[in-house]
Amino acid sequence: MGRLTHDMSNRSIFIYAHLDEGARELVRRSLPKARLVFAEGGKSPDFREANQDRFQSCEVCFGNVPSYWLQSVPHLRWLQLESVGFEYYQGVPALSKSLVFTNLKGLFSRPAAETMLAGLLASYRGLSQLALAQAERRWVCQEVRPQTQLLHGRRVIVLGHGSIGRRLRSLLSAFECHVQSFARTSTEAELRTVDNLDRALPEADVVVSCLPQTPETRGLFGRHRLALLSATAIFANVGRGSVVDETALIEALQQGRLGGAVLDVTLEEPLPPTHPLWSCPRTILLQHTGGGYREELLDKAGAFLANLARFDRGEPLENIVTLAHGY
Amino acid sequence: MGRLTHDMSNRSIFIYAHLDEGARELVRRSLPKARLVFAEGGKSPDFREANQDRFQSCEVCFGNVPSYWLQSVPHLRWLQLESVGFEYYQGVPALSKSLVFTNLKGLFSRPAAETMLAGLLASYRGLSQLALAQAERRWVCQEVRPQTQLLHGRRVIVLGHGSIGRRLRSLLSAFECHVQSFARTSTEAELRTVDNLDRALPEADVVVSCLPQTPETRGLFGRHRLALLSATAIFANVGRGSVVDETALIEALQQGRLGGAVLDVTLEEPLPPTHPLWSCPRTILLQHTGGGYREELLDKAGAFLANLARFDRGEPLENIVTLAHGY
Repeated sequence: MGRLTHDMSNRSIFIYAHLDEGARELVRRSLPKARLVFAEGGKSPDFREANQDRFQSCEVCFGNVPSYWLQSVPHLRWLQLESVGFEYYQGVPALSKSLVFTNLKGLFSRPAAETMLAGLLASYRGLSQLALAQAERRWVCQEVRPQTQLLHGRRVIVLGHGSIGRRLRSLLSAFECHVQSFARTSTEAELRTVDNLDRALPEADVVVSCLPQTPETRGLFGRHRLALLSATAIFANVGRGSVVDETALIEALQQGRLGGAVLDVTLEEPLPPTHPLWSCPRTILLQHTGGGYREELLDKAGAFLANLARFDRGEPLENIVTLAHGY
Repeated sequence: MGRLTHDMSNRSIFIYAHLDEGARELVRRSLPKARLVFAEGGKSPDFREANQDRFQSCEVCFGNVPSYWLQSVPHLRWLQLESVGFEYYQGVPALSKSLVFTNLKGLFSRPAAETMLAGLLASYRGLSQLALAQAERRWVCQEVRPQTQLLHGRRVIVLGHGSIGRRLRSLLSAFECHVQSFARTSTEAELRTVDNLDRALPEADVVVSCLPQTPETRGLFGRHRLALLSATAIFANVGRGSVVDETALIEALQQGRLGGAVLDVTLEEPLPPTHPLWSCPRTILLQHTGGGYREELLDKAGAFLANLARFDRGEPLENIVTLAHGY
């Protein structure tokens, strides 16, 4: 990212984002004049109470603060989220309309698409069985090899045509997959209505959701729609867990009505130890590692600093998100 | 493959290849007039002795019979191997020069390239740790996510430019990897001498061997050459285990002088339970599942039948291999 020296003002900036020491240092070095308040890491109610006060005096915030903090923030003008998802702030009551939200769109698209492709290939090539056998020093070639399949030439439906969905399409095309995208508003998507989606689902080998959590996507893959998939199809999800009826998904996997699942996201995260998904047959859990990479926190800080430079110069911010307001 | 009805002769055909019942049935249905001898499955010395006699009366053989059987085969004209590799028959003494060998070149290229890509992505995206954690119902996002890396943009050297190497290149190009191939005789390869290879190795993020076992490839990656790789590089192998000095590889992994290994092939297969590779750090063992897929045995039988049709019509056979003779 290099050193940014756009520290035009001595603004008060509240840093709630989860950053490691390298990323904090980048922020400090880049903003020598700013009044920085690093508040990440404290989870107790007391800590929150104390920081809420400091937060209320700030003009800029970086990080996903609890949504109820936003109900009375007279000085706050801009909140830079540390995520792509912004469902936590949808419908928050009494949110100021002049408060600008920006997200980190695009930052996670390569790692999320790679993790999803890793999961799909692991499912077809038996890599979970091989990893478990390796830990037990068992040679299982004869059991695993006859069960392996090819990703090559598969019919894939990608739900969502944002940066992750588009990246995934381009990776799948190297495997000569037949890819169709479902997106209501994109002219590049082959499927733009749920009727067209439902007609395509029975032929799909793989369905991958890259959809965000919005009122429209919640429960899109209910019991009825899951039942349209063939008994050999894989349901995969790198968007948000709320898109699918998880109870119906688990039943379909347990009863052999679905070929498998590759899930980076789930309704509950962290997944509690007693959750039935842990031991669902033919299911690969990626534990929301999809967006990660070693330089992730440094790049998050860099994206915030680049947007802050625009803010200081009075230029339009990148990746402004439009919230449904709760009032 | 469909039904082939080219059964022009009542030849004696010895089937030693490992086939499942579906593949045997395809052979039987396609060759109603042939005298078929299915001999697969018996491993005892007595069985071998008995079948060697039947084998010696046959004109055609499908499957990798023990090489010493070939020292006196007056009737045998053609051996269709059930593999791509044919190192087992290199240098066999007193092999008839008129005996034609064909292999199954190309049949395994897609599954082998996909398994290798699955292994590389699993290594960069932490999928082995996730598989082990899933079995123990442990949420490890916080530990795994900061360690994940991207395959995107990596510098990859592919050793060998046969069908697997070429397929792998095309998959890697979707990840915008910078790929160089090492092949002495291919004009498409960027690296055609070991000097050029050695100059490129220190910059490589990944080296993948797709080389067959030949006198030239054996030990190509000795201790000295392995030491040219950076401490973050991954050594991967989907060719034959003999290309690498396994002792030196294990030491480099154990001592942190190598970033990781992704191995479909090893010197010893099956790998014995006490072998140090099972527990080498940052090592993914794919247990020679790389060439497999559900329809593999059916397709092997189909490839043999298609070549047999050429044989019956007196046409040139596909995938003739040239052996170094031992006399």
